[in-house]
Amino acid sequence: MAIVLGPNRYGKAETRLVRVFRDDDTHRLADFNISIALSGDLAAAHLTGDNAGVLPTDTMKNTVYAFAKEYGVGEPEEFGLLLAMHFVATQPPVRAAKVAIESFRWDRLGPHSFRRSADYVRTAAVTVTIDQQQVVSGLRDLVLLNSAGSEFRGFPRDRYTTLPETDDRILATAVDAKWRHSATDADWYESFHGAVDALTKGFVNTYSASLQQTLFAMGSHVLETRPEIAEVRLALPNRHHYLVDLSPFDLTNDNEVFLAGDRPYGLIEGTVARDDAPEAHAEWYL
Amino acid sequence: MAIVLGPNRYGKAETRLVRVFRDDDTHRLADFNISIALSGDLAAAHLTGDNAGVLPTDTMKNTVYAFAKEYGVGEPEEFGLLLAMHFVATQPPVRAAKVAIESFRWDRLGPHSFRRSADYVRTAAVTVTIDQQQVVSGLRDLVLLNSAGSEFRGFPRDRYTTLPETDDRILATAVDAKWRHSATDADWYESFHGAVDALTKGFVNTYSASLQQTLFAMGSHVLETRPEIAEVRLALPNRHHYLVDLSPFDLTNDNEVFLAGDRPYGLIEGTVARDDAPEAHAEWYL
Amino acid sequence: MAIVLGPNRYGKAETRLVRVFRDDDTHRLADFNISIALSGDLAAAHLTGDNAGVLPTDTMKNTVYAFAKEYGVGEPEEFGLLLAMHFVATQPPVRAAKVAIESFRWDRLGPHSFRRSADYVRTAAVTVTIDQQQVVSGLRDLVLLNSAGSEFRGFPRDRYTTLPETDDRILATAVDAKWRHSATDADWYESFHGAVDALTKGFVNTYSASLQQTLFAMGSHVLETRPEIAEVRLALPNRHHYLVDLSPFDLTNDNEVFLAGDRPYGLIEGTVARDDAPEAHAEWYL
Amino acid sequence: MAIVLGPNRYGKAETRLVRVFRDDDTHRLADFNISIALSGDLAAAHLTGDNAGVLPTDTMKNTVYAFAKEYGVGEPEEFGLLLAMHFVATQPPVRAAKVAIESFRWDRLGPHSFRRSADYVRTAAVTVTIDQQQVVSGLRDLVLLNSAGSEFRGFPRDRYTTLPETDDRILATAVDAKWRHSATDADWYESFHGAVDALTKGFVNTYSASLQQTLFAMGSHVLETRPEIAEVRLALPNRHHYLVDLSPFDLTNDNEVFLAGDRPYGLIEGTVARDDAPEAHAEWYL
Repeated sequence: MAIVLGPNRYGKAETRLVRVFRDDDTHRLADFNISIALSGDLAAAHLTGDNAGVLPTDTMKNTVYAFAKEYGVGEPEEFGLLLAMHFVATQPPVRAAKVAIESFRWDRLGPHSFRRSADYVRTAAVTVTIDQQQVVSGLRDLVLLNSAGSEFRGFPRDRYTTLPETDDRILATAVDAKWRHSATDADWYESFHGAVDALTKGFVNTYSASLQQTLFAMGSHVLETRPEIAEVRLALPNRHHYLVDLSPFDLTNDNEVFLAGDRPYGLIEGTVARDDAPEAHAEWYL
Repeated sequence: MAIVLGPNRYGKAETRLVRVFRDDDTHRLADFNISIALSGDLAAAHLTGDNAGVLPTDTMKNTVYAFAKEYGVGEPEEFGLLLAMHFVATQPPVRAAKVAIESFRWDRLGPHSFRRSADYVRTAAVTVTIDQQQVVSGLRDLVLLNSAGSEFRGFPRDRYTTLPETDDRILATAVDAKWRHSATDADWYESFHGAVDALTKGFVNTYSASLQQTLFAMGSHVLETRPEIAEVRLALPNRHHYLVDLSPFDLTNDNEVFLAGDRPYGLIEGTVARDDAPEAHAEWYL
Repeated sequence: MAIVLGPNRYGKAETRLVRVFRDDDTHRLADFNISIALSGDLAAAHLTGDNAGVLPTDTMKNTVYAFAKEYGVGEPEEFGLLLAMHFVATQPPVRAAKVAIESFRWDRLGPHSFRRSADYVRTAAVTVTIDQQQVVSGLRDLVLLNSAGSEFRGFPRDRYTTLPETDDRILATAVDAKWRHSATDADWYESFHGAVDALTKGFVNTYSASLQQTLFAMGSHVLETRPEIAEVRLALPNRHHYLVDLSPFDLTNDNEVFLAGDRPYGLIEGTVARDDAPEAHAEWYL
Repeated sequence: MAIVLGPNRYGKAETRLVRVFRDDDTHRLADFNISIALSGDLAAAHLTGDNAGVLPTDTMKNTVYAFAKEYGVGEPEEFGLLLAMHFVATQPPVRAAKVAIESFRWDRLGPHSFRRSADYVRTAAVTVTIDQQQVVSGLRDLVLLNSAGSEFRGFPRDRYTTLPETDDRILATAVDAKWRHSATDADWYESFHGAVDALTKGFVNTYSASLQQTLFAMGSHVLETRPEIAEVRLALPNRHHYLVDLSPFDLTNDNEVFLAGDRPYGLIEGTVARDDAPEAHAEWYL
């Protein structure tokens, strides 16, 4: 038996970049949180402490800021591709680079004034290897709620089941979604906002027998409306709203008064894909 | 020397209430996080374990849910007054009740569909005693940024000062504001949104020599436009955006590329008041 | 009616300092999070943008690091006094300085190896004015639990009360404690650890009719054993452990299986003092 | 092109269980946070809203509490196996069950008194399918620091590299570790504590040319001392401690005064395995 090094990677996480574009009196703003991970021929660093192949993570941080000046900052997918390709192209030991970006949104208040918009955080994750490029877009913390049009019935019961069936409940979730693109040259701005719109419509317009059914509807709606997207992965916490028992106070509660619970919560995860989707990079499955 | 009980209070914190109004096909939603604290003649509980005056905090929670059904839920100031007055009126040992409410905002997507809006959290804190009522409204986590129109110069320098003067910097903050009302019968909805608008305009429209100057301008603008408000208290973290030194890469940085820092941060706190404001309840100063 | 500036202060929050003492082969470590707030004659900065009295918060940060080298770093109370006195002594507009320190604990693993100990965070808050000095020590996040010896009975019942009486429940809390000293020259290390021990013994050894009774016992025990301490303030969240109803599964639950709840929670706050305690600085009440 | 359902699972996350053992006067305590995820034949739920195969997540929660009474609660690996096997054995549509447990530690203060110990959180993740069982143990938030014996030199430099080489730096990390067992019948208590000890010793006793080298040493040391463990996966954030430049104040800084940074941070991830390790369940790679 020998002890061997398995899969590994390293990088700089959470470099916070704010880029102001002052080309005219009306400023524009990009606000990113950027995490870079590189992998490749790094065995010597682990086994013998030889750092000849270990580009410092401090350099990755510097590269983010320098590129923001040299090349500007457009959509996060684009900036991620630029960075990831740079590391694979210039560092011989590097076989794969992943760049994950959180993009924070700001609403305009004036020519150079902004208000942070926190309805959700946009994400992008780009993986580049010698022979493959993969772009994944997404978002997290988009909280949606339907106060009607949701039921949960017909489920199996065992010794430990006490949940009553319901034909009218609150359905609420905080959408965590990622979707991978078939190619690397979409109109990222339009694609992202189209996908958000499709996810939202899928949630709002589905009469829901379960959060699973809503998940599939949301993913399907993205694929139906966005031809550039190959596959959608959703993680949907079921933010339970418990109907409060008001009968001790001689009051009825006709789906009007709820306790919004923290823990535990249901968690529904699934992917929806085209049957002819191109194969994903291994990173998609992580 | 004797050991004595000093100021004390108790209550139920963070009762999560969601109230759905289903009066017609278009639902309405109230989403509150409610904390109640009662004080009064509670010495026996502390000193001898006699609970005859200790209404259970579980009862406070029940009261929130029952009142949400019996009386409905309007603006948070109104619901807070209702609850606080109830405890002072019905529990003889209780001399003062404070009800603090966080109100979460939802944007409408459809007749019974909503998206959580997280640009800020609205707050209300109501204090009721036998002979006094005080209503404090507020918000937290309203993040504002000016990418021009801000400087910081003319400050004193000592042995430990290295900061260069600047006549052009990013000014950003996460507004934490509370304001107390002269009376207890305002149009809470209009008052709140007017105050948010005044705070925002105060930030956007002030050419800023310091965050202190901006703070005073924000508070003043609230008082100038909202006659029902007596005093404003602001806590403004200075969310530093550090200009990145790109000279090692032979690049200039003309206020374009910034590192958004986490810690440390400046923290500017102050109040702005009318000189004829009615005196505040002690709770205002806590 | 005129609009006037009320109470205000400013400073640098959360400067993170790690100080290594390498005087011999066995290193020592101090790990602090330091927040400084200054107040005094700062009206001009707010009203006219004149910064002549506004020592930059960046200078406060620099002062922390420089003092850590020049004077070393001992107990947090001592380092806080040093910093607070410096600002009041050297900046004419400054009338009061508050320095709040979180001190993170590390256990020794070797001559220069350490493991972070997160059982609680030690705190100190020092306030210095021209003619007064106040030292407050404390801790937060000390989580204690008694699985026996706790009841809650004899409380009043109103229309909204459903809680059954219990003579055996879990009592658990996350202690948030502050205590002010009668003077400014204690043996801070011994005093702090003695107070932690007294708080803990007060919790463990009290047969509890309510968390209020436990609070008073904890505070009293500190004052009885630590003559240098004048007053103790405690905020004790009641971390509810709900007995799970197992009867649907034909199982009994004799105080064995609990659901640990998040929200809502009871919150019990109170102070315990010597009746001859010296008066506190206003800052104690904030 | 058709739209198809891909990999999916669902379950109840973060069920908070506290189990008290009162068999004699000296109580024992188990404090778990349990997340369950089931997968199998769930297509109908997604595609047609047919819930005939969807055991409610509420039932999973009930099962946790009922099992805690019926079978007791031992080591988290054991309780996870019990739960996971139950769902696969009793629910025909379920092909795989994953049970992830966070176990919170308490130190004894008395026969029925405890203090929460937060130096790290112990974790266990059990995956059970029809024909395979996998047990993964682990921990998170174990913060370690060496104030000597760490360097970083000999790395490549490109246009964006400014980092100086160093032969003496602080090395600090918050260990996030998972390790999979070759079998499902270890002495879980001894195995866990042996692994923690090996990880810690690997960190403390390695003269470190890089965090990569330390990672491999930590993983190797676990495998060398714990024959029941097949593979170790580590994610080690590099908690940077920046040497503060005190030269503007005419002070030297001989590795004594550091700024503890938040973001960005290096992140080093890697696995260390026996070359004859049995193959892992797919879940290990997620």
